[in-house]
Amino acid sequence: MSEKSELLAVPGFRASGMAGGIKKNGKKDLALILCDGPASVAGLFTLNKVKAAPVLISSQRVKKGVSRGVLVNSGNANACTGKKGMDNALAMTALAEGVLGLKKGELLVCSTGVIGVPMPMNKVKAAIPKLASSFGADLTPFAQAIMTTDAYQKTSFTKARIGNKTITIAGIAKGAGMICPNMATLLSFFLTDACINTASLKKALKIAVDGSFNRIIVDNDTSTNDTALAFASKKTGPEIKAGTKAFDDFTRALTNVAVKLAHMIVRDGEGATRFIEIDLRNAASAKDAINGARTIAQSQLVKTAFFGGDPNWGRILAALGRAGIKLDESKVDISFNGVPVVRNGLDTGNEDKAAKAIKTRDVVVTINLRAGKASEKLWTTDLSYEYVKINSAYRT
Amino acid sequence: MSEKSELLAVPGFRASGMAGGIKKNGKKDLALILCDGPASVAGLFTLNKVKAAPVLISSQRVKKGVSRGVLVNSGNANACTGKKGMDNALAMTALAEGVLGLKKGELLVCSTGVIGVPMPMNKVKAAIPKLASSFGADLTPFAQAIMTTDAYQKTSFTKARIGNKTITIAGIAKGAGMICPNMATLLSFFLTDACINTASLKKALKIAVDGSFNRIIVDNDTSTNDTALAFASKKTGPEIKAGTKAFDDFTRALTNVAVKLAHMIVRDGEGATRFIEIDLRNAASAKDAINGARTIAQSQLVKTAFFGGDPNWGRILAALGRAGIKLDESKVDISFNGVPVVRNGLDTGNEDKAAKAIKTRDVVVTINLRAGKASEKLWTTDLSYEYVKINSAYRT
Repeated sequence: MSEKSELLAVPGFRASGMAGGIKKNGKKDLALILCDGPASVAGLFTLNKVKAAPVLISSQRVKKGVSRGVLVNSGNANACTGKKGMDNALAMTALAEGVLGLKKGELLVCSTGVIGVPMPMNKVKAAIPKLASSFGADLTPFAQAIMTTDAYQKTSFTKARIGNKTITIAGIAKGAGMICPNMATLLSFFLTDACINTASLKKALKIAVDGSFNRIIVDNDTSTNDTALAFASKKTGPEIKAGTKAFDDFTRALTNVAVKLAHMIVRDGEGATRFIEIDLRNAASAKDAINGARTIAQSQLVKTAFFGGDPNWGRILAALGRAGIKLDESKVDISFNGVPVVRNGLDTGNEDKAAKAIKTRDVVVTINLRAGKASEKLWTTDLSYEYVKINSAYRT
Repeated sequence: MSEKSELLAVPGFRASGMAGGIKKNGKKDLALILCDGPASVAGLFTLNKVKAAPVLISSQRVKKGVSRGVLVNSGNANACTGKKGMDNALAMTALAEGVLGLKKGELLVCSTGVIGVPMPMNKVKAAIPKLASSFGADLTPFAQAIMTTDAYQKTSFTKARIGNKTITIAGIAKGAGMICPNMATLLSFFLTDACINTASLKKALKIAVDGSFNRIIVDNDTSTNDTALAFASKKTGPEIKAGTKAFDDFTRALTNVAVKLAHMIVRDGEGATRFIEIDLRNAASAKDAINGARTIAQSQLVKTAFFGGDPNWGRILAALGRAGIKLDESKVDISFNGVPVVRNGLDTGNEDKAAKAIKTRDVVVTINLRAGKASEKLWTTDLSYEYVKINSAYRT
C-alpha cells in the first residue's frame, strides 16, 4: 500500500486543526494532538537564549516524561512577550485541558509566527472549545494548521517491524526560514504507537534530530521557538528498550521519518530554487567535518552562486579557509554533481561541464579534504531574490 | 583648503595605474606605488587558510620592515592557483623591480578579483614597463586601478600636527563584497611621509585596522587576498615612537583615515541600500560586545528586514539569543534611529514611529544589554535583491 493512499494516522492519537483568527488571512492557526491515554514524551528545544513562553513551559512539562498531547498555534510566536506571554500560554493550555477533562500540565504547548506581539487571547479562548470538539484520527488538519511561511504541509509516515508486530511512526513539521542546525530546529512532532518508555524515546529522538534537523540550513538564524516533540501511545508491539535491536530498528525508522521532514523543509526553504547537499569527506575530525560543511552551507556567496547556476568553487575553498579547520589547500578535491572542478586545490578546467551539470534542482557538492577520516553531510538551499522578498516583506 | 580640491599625494611617494588587459571590460587593472627611498612598511593579512600567492609573498617580504612599494592587479586574485600562481606573482614583481632598478624583494604584491584563474602573464608582462614609466604624485590612478565590484574609488586623506610639523596620511582601499571582519580585510594601502619606524608603524596599523576594517561586515565571507599595507617615507617631521604623544596623535589620524575608508566600503557594499550602525552597549565583556554586534550584523533575517524598512526588533533579539553571550532578555532595550522599540525586552508600541524613522539611508541600531560595561560599534549593510543579483551573476 502506498504512503499516499494511506490515512495519516497513528493508533492512540487523534488530532484537530482550525482557523481561530490568529492569522489575519483566515487560514488555519490552531492545532491539537491528543493521546487517548498517558503517552511517553520526549522533547528537544531551541538553544537560543531568548526562548518563547511555550518553550519555557513545554521544556518543564516534558520532564515528567508523560503527556496527553500538545496544543499548537501558528501566526504568533508568543516570544519576547514577558510575563503576559507566560500567562497567556498557561491560560491557553489550561483552557484546552479543562475542555478535554485533562489534569493541569498534561498538555504541552508550542507557538510559531511573529515575535513580540501579544497573543489575541479573546480569539484563542473562543476557538479552543471548537478545536477540542472536532477530533479525528487524520493528522492532516494538524499539519495544515501549524504552517507559517511554509508553501506546503510537511508530513512523513513509516511502518516498522518490531518483534512480530508492525508499529507506525508519523512525523509532522513546519519551517521554511530562520533555520540553522542548533539542536531542535523548527516545530516538529513525532507520533508512534510503539511501546517505548520515556528514557528510550528521548534517546531515539536525540539521534533522529541530530541526523536530520541538525543537518539542515536555510539561513543561519535559530528561532526562539524551535521544538521537537515525540509521543508514544504504547498501543502496539513489545516494549522497546535502549540497547536492543528493537531500539535500533525503531530509531532507524524514526530517523528516516525525520530526514524526510528535514529534506522537505530545505526544499521548501524560503525562496529556495535548489536543494544542495554538502558532502564533506575525510576531514581531520568530526568537529572539522561539521564546521567545514556548515561554513560552506552558511556562506552567502556560495548560496548566491548556486542561485545563479555558477560552479564557483573558489567561494567554496574560501569558505573552507575561514572555517577554522585543518586544511591543506593542495590536497582538496571538489566536484559538483559528479563533475570534478577542483583536483589537488587547482582548477580542472571542467567549469563549462560543471555549469551544465548543476542546471538541476538538486545539487550534490562533494569535497574531499584528505585530512583524516571524518565525513559529514548537510543539506541547504541557495539564496535567491525570493528569499530577500519574503524576508523583507514578512510583516507588511 | 577642502579635501576635494587637494591633490591626493604624499611626499616621497609616486603612483601609477593603467589598463593592462586583465579585466575583459578594458578598465584599469594594474597599479603601482613607489617610494623614492626605503620606506618603513607594516602589513596585516587575511586569516583565511586559503591564501592567495601574493599574500604568501607579501607577508614574507613585509617582515624585513623596509620596502620600496607595491604592485597591485585587479581582475584576477591569483588565489587557488598553486605553484604556477606563486611563479607568476614572483615574475610580476621581478619584472617591475627590474624596470624600476630595484633590488629583488623590494616590492610587495597584491591581487584581487576572480579566484582560481591563471594570471594572463603575457598581458601583464607587456603592461608592466608602461606602468613603471607613467608615475605621478597623484594617487588617483592607483585608486582607480585596484577596483573590482566597487562602484566608486575609495580614498581618504588627512593632515596631522606631529611636533611642529604637519604630516600627511593617505588611505586607499577597494572592496564591496566578501567582507567580514577577520584581521585585515580587503585591500587597503596607507601612505604617510611621517618619520615612523617599522615597529611603531606596525603597532599603529594594527590599532587602526582593528578600529575600522575589523568593524565592518557586508557579508560573512573573508577573502583569500585581504591585505592592509602601510608605508612611511619618513620625509617629514620628528621621529614617531610608540608610547609617545606623537604616536598617539599619529595613530588617531591613521585610524580616522581607516574608519573613513571602512565606512565607504560599507556604503558601497554589494547591493547595499542602507548603512547600518550596530551600537551595542553594556555587554558583560568585550568579547560579548563584539560577538553580539557581529551576530546581529551577520543575520540574513536582520539584514533583509532593514532592506524592507521593517523595524523587526524580534529578529535582533533572536540574533542576540544565539550569539553565545550573557543575556537577560528582560533587561534589553533597543532603539532604531533614536526611537525606542524595545524596553526591558518588551515591545514599546512604537513600531509605526520606528518604521518612519528608518526610512533613511543611515540607520543606527542601539542595543543596551545592561549586562556589564563593554560596548562596541560595527557597521554593516542591508541584504537586497541587488546583492543577490551581483553575486549570482558575478562571473557570467
